[in-house]
Order: sequence, then C-alpha cells, then structure tokens
Amino acid sequence: MTKNTDTRQLILDTAATMFHNQSYNTVGVAAICKQANVSKGSFFHFFKSKQDLALEVLEHFQILISKQLINKAFLSSISPMQRFDIFINELFNFQQLQTQTHGHMPGCPFGNMAMEQSTQDEVLREKSAACLDQLASHFQTALSDAINTGALSSLDIEASADAMLSYIEGVQLLAKARNSPELILKLGPAMKLIRIENTE
Amino acid sequence: MTKNTDTRQLILDTAATMFHNQSYNTVGVAAICKQANVSKGSFFHFFKSKQDLALEVLEHFQILISKQLINKAFLSSISPMQRFDIFINELFNFQQLQTQTHGHMPGCPFGNMAMEQSTQDEVLREKSAACLDQLASHFQTALSDAINTGALSSLDIEASADAMLSYIEGVQLLAKARNSPELILKLGPAMKLIRIENTE
Repeated sequence: MTKNTDTRQLILDTAATMFHNQSYNTVGVAAICKQANVSKGSFFHFFKSKQDLALEVLEHFQILISKQLINKAFLSSISPMQRFDIFINELFNFQQLQTQTHGHMPGCPFGNMAMEQSTQDEVLREKSAACLDQLASHFQTALSDAINTGALSSLDIEASADAMLSYIEGVQLLAKARNSPELILKLGPAMKLIRIENTE
Repeated sequence: MTKNTDTRQLILDTAATMFHNQSYNTVGVAAICKQANVSKGSFFHFFKSKQDLALEVLEHFQILISKQLINKAFLSSISPMQRFDIFINELFNFQQLQTQTHGHMPGCPFGNMAMEQSTQDEVLREKSAACLDQLASHFQTALSDAINTGALSSLDIEASADAMLSYIEGVQLLAKARNSPELILKLGPAMKLIRIENTE
C-alpha cells in the first residue's frame, strides 16, 4: 500500500466514523482533517468536495454492512424466512457495539443521510436511496425463495420488500431516538409479518 | 395580539418551515432572522438559543399534527382499525401538499430531528422521543379499543403501537429518500398487520 492510499483511506475511515456518530451536516472538512491529522490540501487532493467524500463514505458502509450483516444472513443455504431473524440479530449486535463504543446509538448510515440530505442535495438523496434499494434487494430474494419453497403464498415481492425495509429503518429510528438498541431485538422480528398483496 | 407576540410567532413559524424543509443543522439563526426580517437582537429577546427555539418548533408540530392528522383519524366514533386507514390518508395528504409546495417530501419533523440530533443533543433527542411517544399513544388507544370490541385478539399493546409507529416513520423515511409521497399510500395500510404478541 502506498502512502497516498493510506492517507486517502485514513480520511475516508475518519469521515465514516464521524458522519455516522455525529451527522453529515455537523462534521465539516476542517474537523475531519484535524481528526485524521491531515492538511486541507491533502484532503482536496483526494476528494473534490465534502459531497464527493460522502458518496464514498456511503459505499464504505455498503461494503461494511454486506460483510457484517448481509453475508451472514442472506445466504441461500439458510431457509428464507429465517434469514430475516439472523439479519435482526446481526443488526442488533452492530448497533449495540456502536452504542457501547460511542455512547449513542447511531442508527442506519443510509437512513441518516436520507433524512438529513434528501430535501437539500439531490446527489446524496439518490445515493442514499440506491443504498436502501440494495438492502431491499436481499429482502426481495428471500421473499422470492420463500414463495418458491411454499413458506409464503404469493405477494407483491417488490412492495413487500420495501415495506420490510421501511419497518427496519423505522425501528432503528425509534431505537436511536430512545438510545436503546434493545428495541431492535424486541420489535425487529415482526418484520416477517409485513406483506403487501398483489393488486392484480 | 401585541407586536411582541407577532414577532415571536413569526420567528417560530419561519423556523418551523425552514427546519422542516431543509434541516435543523443546515438552518442557522442568521438565516432565520434574514427570512423573517427580524434582527438577531430581537431573536435572542424571544429565544435563549437555537436549541430553545427547536424545542418550541417541535411543540408547534405537535399541535399542527394533532389538528391535521390525529384529530381527524383517532376519534372514538370511528371503528378502531379504520382509524389507521384515515391516519394514512391524512398523512399522505399532508406530505403530498408539502412536496408540491417545496419540491421535496420533508418527512416527519420528529423523525427528522431524532435522526439528526440524537447522537449529539440529549435535550433534542429526548424531546423528539417524547413527540414520537405521543403519536404512539394514539395507536395504543386504537389497539386497546380494537381488543375491547373484539376486532383484535390480545397482544402487547405498548410494543405493538411502537412497532406501528416505527413502520410509519420508516415508510416516511423511504418516501423521503425516493421523494415520493405516493409510497405512503401504497405501503402505509400494512401498518395494521404489525403486532407484537404478549410474552407472558
């Protein structure tokens, strides 16, 4: 790894932690540079703007969430509806560890960005929406597998996955408002009850 | 109404609109004063701080949402489970009007504040959580009435109301990320499917 790659990665990791545990709006470029101990010149050598950095931070979280949550839960070797239970447990572990480390439950990095920036920054709104869509795609596959194995009867797969995603984002919102990751364990498993019927 | 009351209310209304359609973090005291055409001296005569103003803005939204949503849906004269359908329709009307007026779906003012400030400001986190709790209290009453009339069998009323609140907050989050209030109409009615059973 070259020194350039190290510095770039350091800025990215620092910003990811700061955005997640504070907020995108609160954390400025100067604060990121100070925390990472790099100059502003160095920052703007690697990133055109704070928005440019934020797009990469969201991709960083896509990779992290794939590794720590999706790749443990959404496996074809696991029975379709059981995948949601494993996902809820892993999500709780992730948010509880963050809460223990930082003192506050940070919530979903995609949901946070969507709520903060959707009214103000079309690029970040679209990127957040795309990250949320990617989560829903795993729910779609599980629902489709559940129908194929007879565990579920026919339903609107796309809308039902959106509804399950909405629920789990909302559970994280309420858990963040109460600073109580335990709410994920209590309410989360009910995501399996939500379905939107085919309208045709 | 005295001139003082007018000025105070003008600052409050201006901040409510700006916080809701942009964000709490983005909008500074200077911008509020400029938009309301009042001096900073006048602002700090009425409000100790931006946080102090934000607490009153959240109360302003509690009153607004009571008038425009709760008082139309959560009436004892309406059958308990139907109240949720009326609530969803009114919520859609409210968010659609905001989207048409401002170009972006703003989402729930309590959910927005909770997501933005919960990691950083304990006072605003607790106030947001209290506003969300108040919403859930109407869901609790409807669930309790539904059990009493035999429309629902026994369940954990408090947890089920929290789960329904989570869902509807998450639906607004996803609708905001996609800038599509129609999602509230499509996904919202499924809130009636969510329940958390008694564990005893």
